[in-house]
Amino acid sequence: MTLYLIGLGLCGAKDISVRALEIVKSCDKIYFEAYTSLLSSTIEELSEFYGKEIILADRNQSEQGMDDFIQSAKDKDIAFLVIGDPVSATTHMGIYRTAKEQNIKIQVIHNASIFSAVGITGLQPYKFGKTTSIPFLDRVPNLETPYHVIKANQSIGAHTLCLLDIMVDNVAQETGNKDQTESNTRFMTILQALEVLEDIESRLKEKIITDETLVVGCARLGHDDFIVKSGPLKEIKEFDFGAPLHSLVIPGKLHFSEEEMLDLWNEKK
Amino acid sequence: MTLYLIGLGLCGAKDISVRALEIVKSCDKIYFEAYTSLLSSTIEELSEFYGKEIILADRNQSEQGMDDFIQSAKDKDIAFLVIGDPVSATTHMGIYRTAKEQNIKIQVIHNASIFSAVGITGLQPYKFGKTTSIPFLDRVPNLETPYHVIKANQSIGAHTLCLLDIMVDNVAQETGNKDQTESNTRFMTILQALEVLEDIESRLKEKIITDETLVVGCARLGHDDFIVKSGPLKEIKEFDFGAPLHSLVIPGKLHFSEEEMLDLWNEKK
Repeated sequence: MTLYLIGLGLCGAKDISVRALEIVKSCDKIYFEAYTSLLSSTIEELSEFYGKEIILADRNQSEQGMDDFIQSAKDKDIAFLVIGDPVSATTHMGIYRTAKEQNIKIQVIHNASIFSAVGITGLQPYKFGKTTSIPFLDRVPNLETPYHVIKANQSIGAHTLCLLDIMVDNVAQETGNKDQTESNTRFMTILQALEVLEDIESRLKEKIITDETLVVGCARLGHDDFIVKSGPLKEIKEFDFGAPLHSLVIPGKLHFSEEEMLDLWNEKK
Repeated sequence: MTLYLIGLGLCGAKDISVRALEIVKSCDKIYFEAYTSLLSSTIEELSEFYGKEIILADRNQSEQGMDDFIQSAKDKDIAFLVIGDPVSATTHMGIYRTAKEQNIKIQVIHNASIFSAVGITGLQPYKFGKTTSIPFLDRVPNLETPYHVIKANQSIGAHTLCLLDIMVDNVAQETGNKDQTESNTRFMTILQALEVLEDIESRLKEKIITDETLVVGCARLGHDDFIVKSGPLKEIKEFDFGAPLHSLVIPGKLHFSEEEMLDLWNEKK
């Protein structure tokens, strides 16, 4: 039997691949991990679309619980659904590795992820450097990492993709509320992310982040109503990007064709 | 009417998303671009799977021809199928931009791409720096770029993904042979890519590439029979990775969990 790590892509139920859908329909048990990103479909909609029951994976899964889950693929076909591409997240690769170590058959079905979808900005995917995460400051008060990553990337002229924090309300989880909506989840906005970077700048004072720093805000990449908007930090802070998910790019050295595409986004949307 | 840029993902016909398949089935004309990557399905198999005729896009398309093609989306629904994610390649983003400039409705359907799929190696996607292409030396005899990109990435501890050249035999194309097999296409192997890097090293002599440099070879990522194998360059040169596509990663600074996953690949496959 096999443990399938299946990427759902970036938008809704129908972004699953035809191959993955066939696998899901044939699996004995289906888990869905919804804590590291956001889909426009609810778990009920996914369940209806697959014609199968779906179990919401517990994000506070104990090590023992995770091990039991992986072991269960010894005698059942198990699908573990994740948003994006399963190999983009360290936690999901952890599952892959554990299964592999225990000689449990495991297969990944790739799908779209923010790592390539960010190319829609017109910034060349080749020219992105290291990626960084921006957490809420109340989680990491002395945060510096994103700032150092941006600085390092800029030293080689590379763009920095910043993935913004998602904080799931524990209370709602513990009471068994399975409704994954904004009401019990905090999604960091581009404004909040820029404020975190400004906070670090105020402490480190290396002028990496200023009012004039060019930043590219992206909202809902992979969805029909996605937005790409760029400009000096102080202007982008004023712009309303609407519903989550938001991402942020701090560009390195721009090619003129990249500048032109960014201008086009500012004009056309 | 709309021009749809549709990603087919990395493997075969069934890696298209359910959403994209519905769009393809409803389009008036379907083009397929097969020169920048390799799918395990032939154009005939795709055509049969969609139940639609597919036109092989001309890779030597003139600017006028490309413009006519984009214009045709003014009164028809057109699907342009590409391997991977459409926004990963500069040429496809060029189509997107032209359509946008001319106010022609255009939509991207993302899919898996090598940019995220490379995470299966166990190397953290966050820690990849700039990506580079390695062309055949007979195309670019004084090639230096990949070497400089690897060096720059290593200066910030980042991994380098190297995409290997695909050369389509012009004669076969010009005579109208539409058969996209290895017989008329040269896919660079990992061995050839390493030899190109060694050639640059012999000219620049900065000891970025030596017999002992740790390299990670990946073959057929996204396919069931993919391979990940790492070791010192001199050992990886001896290893037979089999059929294309091949890719190469020159790791930067490794976290121990990345080392452990690379070791696991060497043991288990």
